[in-house]
Amino acid sequence: MDKCPAEFVDLAGRLADAAGGVITKYFRQPFDVITKDDDSPVTIADRESEQIMRDLIEAAFPDHGIVGEEHGSVRAEAEYVWYLDPIDGTKSFICGVPLFGTLIGLVHNSDSGPSPVLGIIDQPIAKERWLGAVGHGASLNGKPIATRACASVDKATLFSTGPEYFDDKSLEAFQRVRAQSNLARFGGDCYAYGLLASGWIDLVVEWNLDVYDYCALIPVVEAAGGTVTTWSGKAHAFDGRESMVASGDGVLHEEVIAILNI
Amino acid sequence: MDKCPAEFVDLAGRLADAAGGVITKYFRQPFDVITKDDDSPVTIADRESEQIMRDLIEAAFPDHGIVGEEHGSVRAEAEYVWYLDPIDGTKSFICGVPLFGTLIGLVHNSDSGPSPVLGIIDQPIAKERWLGAVGHGASLNGKPIATRACASVDKATLFSTGPEYFDDKSLEAFQRVRAQSNLARFGGDCYAYGLLASGWIDLVVEWNLDVYDYCALIPVVEAAGGTVTTWSGKAHAFDGRESMVASGDGVLHEEVIAILNI
Repeated sequence: MDKCPAEFVDLAGRLADAAGGVITKYFRQPFDVITKDDDSPVTIADRESEQIMRDLIEAAFPDHGIVGEEHGSVRAEAEYVWYLDPIDGTKSFICGVPLFGTLIGLVHNSDSGPSPVLGIIDQPIAKERWLGAVGHGASLNGKPIATRACASVDKATLFSTGPEYFDDKSLEAFQRVRAQSNLARFGGDCYAYGLLASGWIDLVVEWNLDVYDYCALIPVVEAAGGTVTTWSGKAHAFDGRESMVASGDGVLHEEVIAILNI
Repeated sequence: MDKCPAEFVDLAGRLADAAGGVITKYFRQPFDVITKDDDSPVTIADRESEQIMRDLIEAAFPDHGIVGEEHGSVRAEAEYVWYLDPIDGTKSFICGVPLFGTLIGLVHNSDSGPSPVLGIIDQPIAKERWLGAVGHGASLNGKPIATRACASVDKATLFSTGPEYFDDKSLEAFQRVRAQSNLARFGGDCYAYGLLASGWIDLVVEWNLDVYDYCALIPVVEAAGGTVTTWSGKAHAFDGRESMVASGDGVLHEEVIAILNI
């Protein structure tokens, strides 16, 4: 695909608007937190905001597929499939920290395989929306953005959500990168990829991300000029959980893949 | 002191306004980062915003003392001493994350010893200002706030800036609290104390804070109904670096002091 159709970009914006409206209503208000089997905290806001996005997709493009964190999959084999994570960074949301984000990704399935064609990272409280789409470039609140140059890890600012998301082997590999980096910070969730696309940080290294997360992140970073692969340097397959290295500078990316050596 | 004089509260607000103006101008812009001897990153924004606050204090109350992170101390033995940290959370600032804050504290030195009478935590990008002052209560952007009830650590949400700020013994003690907490998050800096004062989190446990940090934080948390002491359960002495436990609920506070056991 040379260019993501404008009506898909338009719908993605409306999805983010609608989800943001729901999320803003619940942010910093007392509400019940329900614990799922995997112990991740899930809120009423999460479920309601995903539902409102699903309804909008069904109304606009009833043949498109939808894969959401909260309400599962429909038509997951369709030519176009939307991947939704209404609140990535649930911990931040629960603690009143405006660094969570709504993730909206669109994958185009063709004979040559799945290809992410559109991604949104939306922070509805700070009112920051990163958008990347094939043929449209990358933007923050409508203004074009680009990653910055940073050719070596010892000059790089590195983000990762938290050490608790790695297993033993991946944590050891991650710590090798962290030890060589100029500045490292935990606690970013999806917001870190927005910072990377805007050229304020250089590197995000994470382990075991779900498909509805990386699906939205990849188009934003790539459209801004960055590089995204798994830890083994491969493109993401969109068929399950995967590791993630996102770099603003392609030279830095190669160095980091070599240091990780997994 | 029964009530912090209104003209001091007014000045504190003007200091935060002035510092925020400088900081906003530099946030997310390319600029030189200078490294001090202790390797903490310090920016032009840091120095300029402290200077503008110092000038305002000198103009309004030339007999007041000033202790600042960037430009040192004058009249530190005065009856009233202002403690300034223009950008607490420099890492966040450098990475484009709007969770840093300007800290403004006022200590009243009397025969009965030093007493913090006013504190501001100001986040100029998100436009969030927490204020606490003796006799004035606590507020976020002018609206009264209060900590929430949370009587045991297993139900508590815990924040701390990062594991790298502890030494071996204090990290071990901190990890005991963390292991028992319901939810723990790193990366808060001063913003965590605002969240605590607003009743969105329950507990902040930190090690080795500088006086110009805890000086501003204590009045905000206390005026909101929270409890603040060192790890040994004592009041802060305002004469150097100290540990910090801040709790929204006094019962929780006692439990945490016992678990830390330092």
